Amino acid sequence: MDGLLTSGQDAGTARTRPEEDALHRLAVVLQDDLTETNRTILARMASDVELIPQLAAHLIAAGGKRLRPLLTLAAARLCGYRGERHIHLAACVEFIHTATLLHDDVVDESGLRRGLASANAVFGNKASVLVGDFLFARAFELMVEDGSLDVLRILCNASATIAEGEVLQLTTQNDLSTDIPRYFKVIEGKTAALFAAACEVGGVVADRDSAVCGALAGYGAALGMAFQLVDDALDYAADQNELGKTVGDDFREGKLTYPVLVAYAAGDGPERAFWRRTIEDGEQTETDLATALDLIRRHDAIGQTIREADAFARKAKDALATLPDDPLRALMMEAADYAVSRHR
Amino acid sequence: MDGLLTSGQDAGTARTRPEEDALHRLAVVLQDDLTETNRTILARMASDVELIPQLAAHLIAAGGKRLRPLLTLAAARLCGYRGERHIHLAACVEFIHTATLLHDDVVDESGLRRGLASANAVFGNKASVLVGDFLFARAFELMVEDGSLDVLRILCNASATIAEGEVLQLTTQNDLSTDIPRYFKVIEGKTAALFAAACEVGGVVADRDSAVCGALAGYGAALGMAFQLVDDALDYAADQNELGKTVGDDFREGKLTYPVLVAYAAGDGPERAFWRRTIEDGEQTETDLATALDLIRRHDAIGQTIREADAFARKAKDALATLPDDPLRALMMEAADYAVSRHR
Repeated sequence: MDGLLTSGQDAGTARTRPEEDALHRLAVVLQDDLTETNRTILARMASDVELIPQLAAHLIAAGGKRLRPLLTLAAARLCGYRGERHIHLAACVEFIHTATLLHDDVVDESGLRRGLASANAVFGNKASVLVGDFLFARAFELMVEDGSLDVLRILCNASATIAEGEVLQLTTQNDLSTDIPRYFKVIEGKTAALFAAACEVGGVVADRDSAVCGALAGYGAALGMAFQLVDDALDYAADQNELGKTVGDDFREGKLTYPVLVAYAAGDGPERAFWRRTIEDGEQTETDLATALDLIRRHDAIGQTIREADAFARKAKDALATLPDDPLRALMMEAADYAVSRHR
Repeated sequence: MDGLLTSGQDAGTARTRPEEDALHRLAVVLQDDLTETNRTILARMASDVELIPQLAAHLIAAGGKRLRPLLTLAAARLCGYRGERHIHLAACVEFIHTATLLHDDVVDESGLRRGLASANAVFGNKASVLVGDFLFARAFELMVEDGSLDVLRILCNASATIAEGEVLQLTTQNDLSTDIPRYFKVIEGKTAALFAAACEVGGVVADRDSAVCGALAGYGAALGMAFQLVDDALDYAADQNELGKTVGDDFREGKLTYPVLVAYAAGDGPERAFWRRTIEDGEQTETDLATALDLIRRHDAIGQTIREADAFARKAKDALATLPDDPLRALMMEAADYAVSRHR
């Protein structure tokens, strides 16, 4: 069990890379809030339909970074909020995220999620879809209890945008004619929208004006883009044991990610034919991943992806720079740098 | 194209059984509201991610009864409501229903839905899950625009209850030890909860007190139970062409429905062994459906199911009887009778 939800455990020690990165330090600073959030998550995953807490427990064991709830907590505290609402909204954000992971497991047929067998592999497609639906509904119940229509609007819109991004990803999945703007639209939906909403609602509970909430949303959106780009890079670069993620997942699923777009654009005729066969037609042999990794290296596709991510990290910091200086603001800025540097 | 959404078409003529039943007459009385609801549904299914309106159009072609939105419209009008909010909430109720159908297609692997190939069979599991998520999110966006936290609470709770019911169904699916109370809990979730919420929000937009809203919810819940019981009966009794539903779907999926519970309880040793093999172990041969139908007939399981449904129909009418007499109330009561009589 290495999840943050392990009761009584230091909220920061359990992450898969326990070095003193900015996210770890954010988790330590916000430890009490995070403990309360984890308590709320556990309480609200309860159901007398046994499979629901069972499957929930499986996800809890997998842990996860609690990155999105951490953003809600940080944004609220940065805005000087002193109440309890941000706890419930942080739980709500994690429920939405977990629901999309469950539905993603169905979609992507990925065997590993957070280093453990995916919920799908253990419980089946059916349970993943339905428990995901339950968590979505619970998330909205939490928002209704909170009672802010602004919060509801932000998180409903984010949910619709996430679904649109996932559908767009589905339709671009085997299509090498996908261009960069379209790729960005996919990850704006599937990743950046919830990062943005998670930050923005922190400003809303603190009753801050639209300039502040907009800055927080801008920070979250750019941070989400940076994270996703680096995740995409890591899929062609990471050590599987270290990250709990299978290298080449995206390749095997025929996903068009930034590194592939770069390598395809820079490739010659035979290289493009390789990408068309493996990605568009989904015809892959055992040696293809090695070839793909070689082409990615040859065209510095990882380097280009990281530079793009770095530009988003700068954008994230610029957005935060409009807010008053504060130790929490500094940590949030460092988190943007960490989003990029973690690839090393 | 025989859906109610065909623009300019009489809202009633398109249903699969066009005789003068109570639902048809309700649809005629509420025709203008229904046309507006269909317009709202079309407008809000729009997305610049092309697969979403494409898949939506597939569902629109399939039509469906628009039963749940009809209940919202009827309840609101019965309460004397004269505004526009009930239109949006009726659309929202249909979105939630359509989303659950899409997710059900993934879950049940059923080949037919409303007489056409299911969305799943045409577009694949992935699209069904994600477009379902999009419709859920759109439904909540519509509610947030409406701005009533009471409406949001009712429909969020219903959504969570639906998901719980579906998960419970999943865990009881191959388990003959399922008893009647547990079976009722499944259909309370998967069917009655949304019927109840659809009716209740009609009272809420009309600003009626909790006695009235509670009566409407009670009517909807009992009506939903009656409808589901009769649907379950029809699965072992209906003419496929007439209903657009495959006879024996539930049997092949190993679903425990009321008729099976009755036949199992009344069966002798070899009969119980038959049910265990075909339902619990999922080992079925080509002649098993015929045997199942024979056992269902032998123990009058359809008759018992219909009598149970009739009891719920009476409960539905009793709930409405607490409200003032009105032609619309009379039609809604007749709809409860029709829910049962349509099996003939």
